[in-house]
Amino acid sequence: MAETERTVTACMIVIGNEILSGRTQDANLTWIAGRLTELGIRLTEARVIPDVEATIVETVNAVRTRFDYVFTSGGIGPTHDDITADCIAKAFGVGIGIHPEARRRLEAHYAQQQGEFNEARQRMARIPDGATLIDNPISRAPGFRIGNVFVMAGIPVVMRAMFESIRHELVGGARLLSRTVSAFLPEGKFAAGLGQLQDRHPELDFGSYPFYRGGRAGASIVVRGTNAARLAAAVDEVKALVGALGGEPLDGDPSAQ
Amino acid sequence: MAETERTVTACMIVIGNEILSGRTQDANLTWIAGRLTELGIRLTEARVIPDVEATIVETVNAVRTRFDYVFTSGGIGPTHDDITADCIAKAFGVGIGIHPEARRRLEAHYAQQQGEFNEARQRMARIPDGATLIDNPISRAPGFRIGNVFVMAGIPVVMRAMFESIRHELVGGARLLSRTVSAFLPEGKFAAGLGQLQDRHPELDFGSYPFYRGGRAGASIVVRGTNAARLAAAVDEVKALVGALGGEPLDGDPSAQ
Repeated sequence: MAETERTVTACMIVIGNEILSGRTQDANLTWIAGRLTELGIRLTEARVIPDVEATIVETVNAVRTRFDYVFTSGGIGPTHDDITADCIAKAFGVGIGIHPEARRRLEAHYAQQQGEFNEARQRMARIPDGATLIDNPISRAPGFRIGNVFVMAGIPVVMRAMFESIRHELVGGARLLSRTVSAFLPEGKFAAGLGQLQDRHPELDFGSYPFYRGGRAGASIVVRGTNAARLAAAVDEVKALVGALGGEPLDGDPSAQ
Repeated sequence: MAETERTVTACMIVIGNEILSGRTQDANLTWIAGRLTELGIRLTEARVIPDVEATIVETVNAVRTRFDYVFTSGGIGPTHDDITADCIAKAFGVGIGIHPEARRRLEAHYAQQQGEFNEARQRMARIPDGATLIDNPISRAPGFRIGNVFVMAGIPVVMRAMFESIRHELVGGARLLSRTVSAFLPEGKFAAGLGQLQDRHPELDFGSYPFYRGGRAGASIVVRGTNAARLAAAVDEVKALVGALGGEPLDGDPSAQ
């Protein structure tokens, strides 16, 4: 896409055996994708990896040089399988130890809760050298940022709160706008016309996402771009295409899942 | 984990801008993870990537030598943004052309539906040289297998039907069994004891997944392994641990999302 502003990219790393075993449906990816889009940042890739040191280290190092921002979720709790902080330190080649401010927050939290600030909980204050803390207004144990990598919790309510607390640190580029036109037309009917629209408007991105609804085949045509006027004009062309093929163009997405 | 049977691994590649933009919540990953586990195959990594040729080619080639099986979903329809088949051919360094049997199936389908078998729809018969077809009982346009890579549709109902039609081609290893014990205890209370259990049973895998439910903090402790008797004994130890800490051990997962 031709743009005046730079495209800012991000990669999300979901860390956790529970996603890969099918036990848990990840809820963070879709959420963060939407929030990043609003900030003018494009989620360009996501990886789901197990709680395995070599894999975490290799993945973090593979993506942190390729994307502007990297977000991780999962593996920063008090149990033995929470190894993300150590792996991030290893990936960056830095040490890791108890962070005084993280320790202070956790100590105050458990004192207030009349819970024991035991060795397992003290592990949550271990932060790689040089990292800055990410606030956790829900359960206090902080995430952290090191370089362009933001390390967050896996529990959705905590991840979301952490993301909101670092949102102001993120610098987005041209915001990608998106408009959707849906129709109960099979893709094969409008594919040629849509391809021509894409050829005519290389600065926009035309996607087609088929669905079945009430036994009928249809598709949502999504047009994306950074220029609102061009986007609106292209949407009119999509609607004209659908109409010319005997379909009824509907604004938005009737296949919402 | 010490095992007599070999561990069989898999990687899933979800191809599609719509997942990365947050428009669509992926529904295929969790489903295929569960089915693979039943077959004795471990989903060891997943990647979500955009409809970009260079990324698809590079990702397929990065993972197909590292995992026993690779599954892809998305990008095999009739529109211009459906580029998966061409990318797979490029990744394998083979040609691509109209596959006679794929063409025959699609031709028969559109004749029956009184739909035109136009150029866009003929694109769906383009299959990399040397690939074998994967049946599509829903909308006919086939997927394909080339080497250890299985290329399937993105629409969940179609992907699932395709997977069932290739299931018999997959050879699993030791089946990973799983038992879950949940308790309304914060992780920090049982973390030390759980770590000791992990140390005592290196052949098993203990995971802890915290949740909030009705304002109360709890966790599901998941024990995995290939030996049912050892698993059952370990589950009894987990329950004893929870009980000794004043918690009530519950079978299964009360945090089902």
